[in-house]
Amino acid sequence: MKSFIQVDPSSHFPIQNLPYGVFRPLSGGNARIGVAIGDYVLDLSVIEAAGLFKEAGIQTDIFNQPTLNAFMELGSNAWKKVRTKLQLLLSEDEPTLRDDETLRSQALISQNDVELLLPAQIGDYTDFYASKEHATNVGTMFRGKENALMPNWTHLPIGYHGRASSVVVSGTDVRRPKGQMKPPTADAPIFGPSKQLDMELEMGWFIGPGNEQGKPIAITDAEDQIFGLVLVNDWSARDIQAWEYQPLGPFLAKSFATSISPWVVPLEALEPFRVQGPKQEPTPLTYLQKNRASSFNINLEVYLKSQEMETAQKIVSTNFNYLYWSMAQQISHHTITGCNLRPGDLLASGTISGPKKEERGSLLELSWRGTEPIEMNNGEQRVWLEDGDLLTMTGWCQGDGYRIGFGEVTGRILPAYD
Amino acid sequence: MKSFIQVDPSSHFPIQNLPYGVFRPLSGGNARIGVAIGDYVLDLSVIEAAGLFKEAGIQTDIFNQPTLNAFMELGSNAWKKVRTKLQLLLSEDEPTLRDDETLRSQALISQNDVELLLPAQIGDYTDFYASKEHATNVGTMFRGKENALMPNWTHLPIGYHGRASSVVVSGTDVRRPKGQMKPPTADAPIFGPSKQLDMELEMGWFIGPGNEQGKPIAITDAEDQIFGLVLVNDWSARDIQAWEYQPLGPFLAKSFATSISPWVVPLEALEPFRVQGPKQEPTPLTYLQKNRASSFNINLEVYLKSQEMETAQKIVSTNFNYLYWSMAQQISHHTITGCNLRPGDLLASGTISGPKKEERGSLLELSWRGTEPIEMNNGEQRVWLEDGDLLTMTGWCQGDGYRIGFGEVTGRILPAYD
Repeated sequence: MKSFIQVDPSSHFPIQNLPYGVFRPLSGGNARIGVAIGDYVLDLSVIEAAGLFKEAGIQTDIFNQPTLNAFMELGSNAWKKVRTKLQLLLSEDEPTLRDDETLRSQALISQNDVELLLPAQIGDYTDFYASKEHATNVGTMFRGKENALMPNWTHLPIGYHGRASSVVVSGTDVRRPKGQMKPPTADAPIFGPSKQLDMELEMGWFIGPGNEQGKPIAITDAEDQIFGLVLVNDWSARDIQAWEYQPLGPFLAKSFATSISPWVVPLEALEPFRVQGPKQEPTPLTYLQKNRASSFNINLEVYLKSQEMETAQKIVSTNFNYLYWSMAQQISHHTITGCNLRPGDLLASGTISGPKKEERGSLLELSWRGTEPIEMNNGEQRVWLEDGDLLTMTGWCQGDGYRIGFGEVTGRILPAYD
Repeated sequence: MKSFIQVDPSSHFPIQNLPYGVFRPLSGGNARIGVAIGDYVLDLSVIEAAGLFKEAGIQTDIFNQPTLNAFMELGSNAWKKVRTKLQLLLSEDEPTLRDDETLRSQALISQNDVELLLPAQIGDYTDFYASKEHATNVGTMFRGKENALMPNWTHLPIGYHGRASSVVVSGTDVRRPKGQMKPPTADAPIFGPSKQLDMELEMGWFIGPGNEQGKPIAITDAEDQIFGLVLVNDWSARDIQAWEYQPLGPFLAKSFATSISPWVVPLEALEPFRVQGPKQEPTPLTYLQKNRASSFNINLEVYLKSQEMETAQKIVSTNFNYLYWSMAQQISHHTITGCNLRPGDLLASGTISGPKKEERGSLLELSWRGTEPIEMNNGEQRVWLEDGDLLTMTGWCQGDGYRIGFGEVTGRILPAYD
């Protein structure tokens, strides 16, 4: 499959991908929906207005909207039809768009000329803890090797409700939080800027139609609910977290900001990269039993660039397929007591770590709680994030001569307010 | 202050209250906003259309909406102006509404003739753990008397993010959840209907304008953010909770349903009932220090009616003023790391328990984890909720010859799905 738009083999956005996003032209105008193709955005509100989605059964004004929620709500059959139509329209053999200069000039905008916005209005955001390596690393540091994993961990995907209001799009600066913490040697808690600011490399997925309250989503139906995936950086203040989290879990240590990448990669684009995922021992209860391979081979990397550094340095290189619990299992578990998911809800995996040291997805693990500082190429060291640090996470599936990429999620640390 | 509409002294909705709600006439029509007055709803979309809010500076169509979010966003000055205008319009000496039969017949609807809906689109829902008696009771049961309160508890208001999607309005049936749990004697977890279904008596408050991400709300400004209060029943499946909650806190055990009362009582209506609240030892950090009395004397009761019973039986009688952490402290703490609150966000107190046995706000505490069953008048016993049980929570402030009431929040337990 090839597009009439030239796309470099290293580009994240070939015709095989076509991720959805919400953008606003820098020249002005309303926020609306587009797909990324090479270095361009295809403006779907223009394609829609031209009547080209009619045979896909799309009613007017699904794409001339500032969020993807209405499109997400339509469900997987509609997503398939639109994707098929878009791949046809962009293919090198199809003249409709290729040869219509007026339509092309209206519909294709350089990515340099747009601002990318949050892709959805997120009703609820849930963060899981689905990487066994991550949970084991954290457990080992805090409770010792023997008690690293809690007894429930291998039986269910542990998760908690995150803060939807604080999810921001890539490129948003992140203010170092101030809060309450208790240094191990102090008698009483103190107040001040977090000294243990961390990142967490995660992936998230947006929910489609969702389910009625009281009616769980069966694991066989769970993937139909996945509209698409994004990169997630779950910024975490470890010192605030350590003091606040007992007994109700993380709260303010993570709700100051969570950054996501702007392009939502359709699950369908990941099909060629479907893999089995880790073996699960013990066998989960029936409602969590997989009926098919349900992980994906997605390379993930994190880069750090301090204010002093001229180029960013890679500090993490891992893979989505290390996740122990699949997305489908997380969705089924989330709804098993009757909790309702709604269009635009965001679920995230929790930190994705692999077995090797460079595969650890947080500074907490990379520096092993500060005992093994990360050496930067310019002589700096990092245990936690410093003011001015720019974090960039990226991810892609490597196909034969093309990449299904997620673009990136970036964020720079601003100093705490006075 | 008296209204031309007759209001019984035991009514929850005298002219001193005027709580806001969203309703739909049973005869049809759109959802819109009203206030409760005696046995009536005053339709604010009619008052608005008649131009009677113009001098209060309200733009068109704030009240002809299916949620209170837009009104909440206007802030405390606008709330005050509208409330003053409504108290004038409804007062016995004011002819505008009293003597205009046409306007009266359009604007006043019997509460029997309307369906009450969720008052707001809740962006995020946060649940605190602000009652010392409750936290101590739970801690004593699970960790013994010596370690009842975690070391952080007296230093900050512990809270966690709840599930906004599963908040339902009073009267909505609640399906008994199925889920994963591990009986103490079992080797492995099992799946099935919860056998330890509980209620939690709480109060919640809706947020007004909110704050920009990264900019905390000072405690001196916190009460200006409180649009009004409702009753909250935080249904909880204790057996599911016990197995899932380590280490990230309650998740599915509470996200199957949370019920709230439909009428939002303005903070201003509670002013005559402002009280000091418990003494706080140790003194909290500066950002949590109160500058004024910040609790309220609100009587709270819970009634249970089983399928066998002819009348409901009171099982809890407690008071809001037992809460250790004030609403203002909870708001300031919530935002201290920069977390943004938005119009329509719901914060809740956590279970409100007092020192006496009948003042305990959950079955877990009332039955002391099942060791002291509750005796019902008809010979039944209760440790946990049974299918068919109808729970009713109510609350009011007792004034001199009038009550500022919250109405009630009810919910009936339906059997688990097959």
